[in-house]
Amino acid sequence: MTRMRLVNLDDIHQASHRIRGVTLHTPLLRATWAEERSPLFLKPESLQPTGAFKLRGATNKVASLTEAERDAGIVAHSSGNHAQAVAHAARSHGARSVIVMPDTAPTVKLEATKRLGAEVVLVPASEQATRSAELAAEHGYTIVPPYDDPFVIAGQGTVGLEVVGDLPDVATVLVPVSGGGLISGVVAAVKEQHPAARVIGVEPEVAGDAAESLRRGERVVWPSELTNRTMADGLRAEGVGQLTWEHIRRYVDDIVTVTEDQIREAMRVLARGSRLVAEASGAVTTAAYLFHGEDLRLQGDTVAVLSGGNVDPQQFAEVLAS
Amino acid sequence: MTRMRLVNLDDIHQASHRIRGVTLHTPLLRATWAEERSPLFLKPESLQPTGAFKLRGATNKVASLTEAERDAGIVAHSSGNHAQAVAHAARSHGARSVIVMPDTAPTVKLEATKRLGAEVVLVPASEQATRSAELAAEHGYTIVPPYDDPFVIAGQGTVGLEVVGDLPDVATVLVPVSGGGLISGVVAAVKEQHPAARVIGVEPEVAGDAAESLRRGERVVWPSELTNRTMADGLRAEGVGQLTWEHIRRYVDDIVTVTEDQIREAMRVLARGSRLVAEASGAVTTAAYLFHGEDLRLQGDTVAVLSGGNVDPQQFAEVLAS
Repeated sequence: MTRMRLVNLDDIHQASHRIRGVTLHTPLLRATWAEERSPLFLKPESLQPTGAFKLRGATNKVASLTEAERDAGIVAHSSGNHAQAVAHAARSHGARSVIVMPDTAPTVKLEATKRLGAEVVLVPASEQATRSAELAAEHGYTIVPPYDDPFVIAGQGTVGLEVVGDLPDVATVLVPVSGGGLISGVVAAVKEQHPAARVIGVEPEVAGDAAESLRRGERVVWPSELTNRTMADGLRAEGVGQLTWEHIRRYVDDIVTVTEDQIREAMRVLARGSRLVAEASGAVTTAAYLFHGEDLRLQGDTVAVLSGGNVDPQQFAEVLAS
Repeated sequence: MTRMRLVNLDDIHQASHRIRGVTLHTPLLRATWAEERSPLFLKPESLQPTGAFKLRGATNKVASLTEAERDAGIVAHSSGNHAQAVAHAARSHGARSVIVMPDTAPTVKLEATKRLGAEVVLVPASEQATRSAELAAEHGYTIVPPYDDPFVIAGQGTVGLEVVGDLPDVATVLVPVSGGGLISGVVAAVKEQHPAARVIGVEPEVAGDAAESLRRGERVVWPSELTNRTMADGLRAEGVGQLTWEHIRRYVDDIVTVTEDQIREAMRVLARGSRLVAEASGAVTTAAYLFHGEDLRLQGDTVAVLSGGNVDPQQFAEVLAS
């Protein structure tokens, strides 16, 4: 196997310059409800214009293209936060975007993506990747992958850059894991600046393929029948990517899992205690703080990356009222 | 009548230095759901450690006391955001605080105030002011008033300082009005730096005493039977203060009112579109943008100050689900 080049701090610094003005440097919010002996800070990526960290990676990728590539257009496939991120990134660089979405995607997500100026192509869920590759081949579009790409990873890494810049003594960073783009970028940014800090991934128990991969030392992929059991729809990717796996096995200290009930409780705590709307995928790190604090032996300052806030309002209301 | 000295930009700059490290410089969040021809930015004070702007004024007041005054202790009365703000400000300056609360205050608010280290004294609602004056006289405590105080106003004014610093070309700032502390500080900060920018107050229609005052050119006080009709429990003060009225009539361009249904709709839009938990009082400015945009002839960049996010979770769930 060819040794892949990992994303480094320099790539992430460049990404940080490229995305400035499009994405938000999110504040670190001290959680006043947290235990005093184990301070917690939230990194609310839910406050990004599209409601999730995905905008960082997509913007870095689009900004890194040549003018000719941008003129030719951009294609991506996603039913979730990546769709809006790519549409927004493309528009902010004056590029055309085509987003391939599953024909089962909720109307609100379709509309949100169209409102950002993207052309939406609907296909059966299983044909998304094929169709987006076909469109790229036919029209010369550049594909913006959701996670397994060095520019996407470097963009997500700016989350880690901001964390260390704002809280240089951070002891532990908790990061949601799905395809692995976010944790790969964050861990590269954190470990290259501050090797003693721990970076710990968090997954739903019922979609715990990355945790199993790290435990076994090899990349394991769970089928979507299993990963689809979690309410955290942003964390259902079928296994981490190849490039992201290289970052995870090289750098990540541990990956822990949380139950669906723990995720719900974390969503309630974030709304009540920190006035934040978190989607389930974004709440897993707070769940890990609440329910794994002791096994993780959290000491010093902990940061929980709240990756996004695009939750169905009805689902959110039900979680709050329960 | 003695002419009162108004709070000026210098007072607000001093406040900004005093409160640094205790309060958050809240980000301006672009509302992607807003009309493109009328850009809207949200100033989410709900992200302050105590969930509301009140922490700014209370911290500036406590930080301005002499060591002897701080050692003697601090007293305030409130059932709402001011209670937690004073408790937090006192603790962050190592001072003792006593908070007089109505015996009808919800347990969650009592507990939150105690958790911040305050001693809580419960009295019938109508006796709060008297009791807090008595405690001040008996024990030499300093009273931290909720709005009618130059240090409190200057502290709240840092909201305006940050707005103009982050968005120098702001055309209109929308600010909730109750006792008037927030709008007085904000209008002083904005008008002294940028006289062409408009500052517009927003009140619930059923608690519209400040709007009536401005229209009549004299301070009008509505009884609590009237102001208590609004769900915006932070905007039920019985009239603006004397010092705040002087700022309002000198500087404020207009005060508009919004209905209870409009407030609910704004809470939904903020949760869905911007992933923010707003209390009703904090949502009135977004309601004004949504429902008064045309009469206000909004042009250029508008900022809506979202003053706080301490909403009862059950009420919030009901609003979201409706």
